[in-house]
Amino acid sequence: MPRPLLISVIGGSEAGPEALAQAEAVGRELAERGVVIVCGGLTGVMEAVCRGAKSAGGTTVGILPGNTPSQANPYVDIPVCTGIGYARNVLVVKSGRAVIAIDGAYGTLSEIAHALGEGIPVIGLNTWSFSINGTTSQAVIPARDPVDAVEKAIQAALKRDPRPASEEVR
Amino acid sequence: MPRPLLISVIGGSEAGPEALAQAEAVGRELAERGVVIVCGGLTGVMEAVCRGAKSAGGTTVGILPGNTPSQANPYVDIPVCTGIGYARNVLVVKSGRAVIAIDGAYGTLSEIAHALGEGIPVIGLNTWSFSINGTTSQAVIPARDPVDAVEKAIQAALKRDPRPASEEVR
Amino acid sequence: MPRPLLISVIGGSEAGPEALAQAEAVGRELAERGVVIVCGGLTGVMEAVCRGAKSAGGTTVGILPGNTPSQANPYVDIPVCTGIGYARNVLVVKSGRAVIAIDGAYGTLSEIAHALGEGIPVIGLNTWSFSINGTTSQAVIPARDPVDAVEKAIQAALKRDPRPASEEVR
Amino acid sequence: MPRPLLISVIGGSEAGPEALAQAEAVGRELAERGVVIVCGGLTGVMEAVCRGAKSAGGTTVGILPGNTPSQANPYVDIPVCTGIGYARNVLVVKSGRAVIAIDGAYGTLSEIAHALGEGIPVIGLNTWSFSINGTTSQAVIPARDPVDAVEKAIQAALKRDPRPASEEVR
Repeated sequence: MPRPLLISVIGGSEAGPEALAQAEAVGRELAERGVVIVCGGLTGVMEAVCRGAKSAGGTTVGILPGNTPSQANPYVDIPVCTGIGYARNVLVVKSGRAVIAIDGAYGTLSEIAHALGEGIPVIGLNTWSFSINGTTSQAVIPARDPVDAVEKAIQAALKRDPRPASEEVR
Repeated sequence: MPRPLLISVIGGSEAGPEALAQAEAVGRELAERGVVIVCGGLTGVMEAVCRGAKSAGGTTVGILPGNTPSQANPYVDIPVCTGIGYARNVLVVKSGRAVIAIDGAYGTLSEIAHALGEGIPVIGLNTWSFSINGTTSQAVIPARDPVDAVEKAIQAALKRDPRPASEEVR
Repeated sequence: MPRPLLISVIGGSEAGPEALAQAEAVGRELAERGVVIVCGGLTGVMEAVCRGAKSAGGTTVGILPGNTPSQANPYVDIPVCTGIGYARNVLVVKSGRAVIAIDGAYGTLSEIAHALGEGIPVIGLNTWSFSINGTTSQAVIPARDPVDAVEKAIQAALKRDPRPASEEVR
Repeated sequence: MPRPLLISVIGGSEAGPEALAQAEAVGRELAERGVVIVCGGLTGVMEAVCRGAKSAGGTTVGILPGNTPSQANPYVDIPVCTGIGYARNVLVVKSGRAVIAIDGAYGTLSEIAHALGEGIPVIGLNTWSFSINGTTSQAVIPARDPVDAVEKAIQAALKRDPRPASEEVR
């Protein structure tokens, strides 16, 4: 009974056309490889990645801040109603074995920081960069395009957590 | 693109053979009707309900207290790693449109109470009863057996939240 | 630098005059012994216990479900804004070294159950009782009156967690 | 019955001597003005700010990731045991009416991002800066030194939330 690989995709609830197109391509690409998408379940990048995944027959999980599945975008298969507000950001990154960050607002930055603090690999597509005391963090792995992001995310996920024989990635 | 109905099943991480058999039957019955099972993802009743669901080709979500999917029982398809400990109990009941409680320890009692406090219907199979100042709560809907529990849970879920045309129950 | 003992007091946001009088007496009694009160910060029993504590010069902590201190009753000194809704119930019981439950609605029942599940002692004043499969739980320690509840709570707290010399109870 | 103003101070659990000295000065300065300090309750910047506050007779709240007050540094008066891990970062920033960020690791970055996402003012002392798509965020208000940070934080807190007459800042 193979358990699928879960990868989280994060990004803002509002995004420009380029970021949305990238998110949709990331979702499609992940789904074609049998990866389940975890996201925050709302609009913008979250909706685009789910739409992409569903166009390729994938499965999508939306970890919502609120109490009702009606908050989820229409491409979420499994709405998880947390009711814990934006503290749910932590759950979004913890539930994936790697994270792909696309564009993003401050919520996305909080998710990247939580992931890095927990040792969860983060792949970035035109997302936040950050520095402290003159030193820029190199912890986010940059990707050239959606396919590159998906390949690097799967590679990082498998390196972090070698899959038991029962869990499959195509 | 039909979104499945989600129903939560709760019960202790340790349970006797009768409760485990009931949980397995509940899982099988829910899966046969196209319902996705949400549970706490651990052992005991949680494992039995997932095993039952998988035996009928169903889908199972485990909302874990910890940080790693290895905490999930082997019949969980979608492990949600919360890292928030037993505060995750609230998420388990909120993510189902109805709750079936089977047997249970204090964690189950907390989940029943959270569900009732939020207006989420709870169906009980040999589970907790409780009273205050001499009055016994009648809020948990009793079920005779696993099939009765599943039918009452689906009925309560649909009454609470009439499904849009896009969400299907067989 | 002595750290005070913290004890949690739980009960419904709506309560009758007897429960409110008990809560106020519990708050006053705890404050007179130098104990800091932790509660959910809202109305009813929570407000009465804080009012009692302030009448004796005590300190009160309100762990709120929402995002703003304006949600706290006027007798809360330290409003903790969680924004995690009723998942905050877990934090209310964990932050005390013992719990006094007075009367209560389903939220109180969830808190009692969380506390017992975590091994935190619970003292009950006219609160929930609960049974499973014909066996009534004896885990809640009954109290005769507010002074008895406070004495049993302090005793249970000190037994659970012998205070370092730097932490004082009068 | 005046309720004190609460301000959150965030920073890493490990920090160099300069950051620790700044944190201690911030804690002392806040306490001298009657402000209650909220922090994550652990070591490093969190301990230094509490030590500074206690040296001036202030009050300190530590919102802990774990389940036990023994996790708190010795200068925490009120340990809030959340048991929700680093999801508690959200509570740390929400419980202050403004946030002072000093130095910091990824946890601090997540807290800054959560605060900005929720519209909570953040004052920075040698802390993270971040940019996206070539634009550097100007949302963190820079401070020259500890006194400047405290003055700007109090000013921002009062601007955000004009204190009722019952809440006092010296």
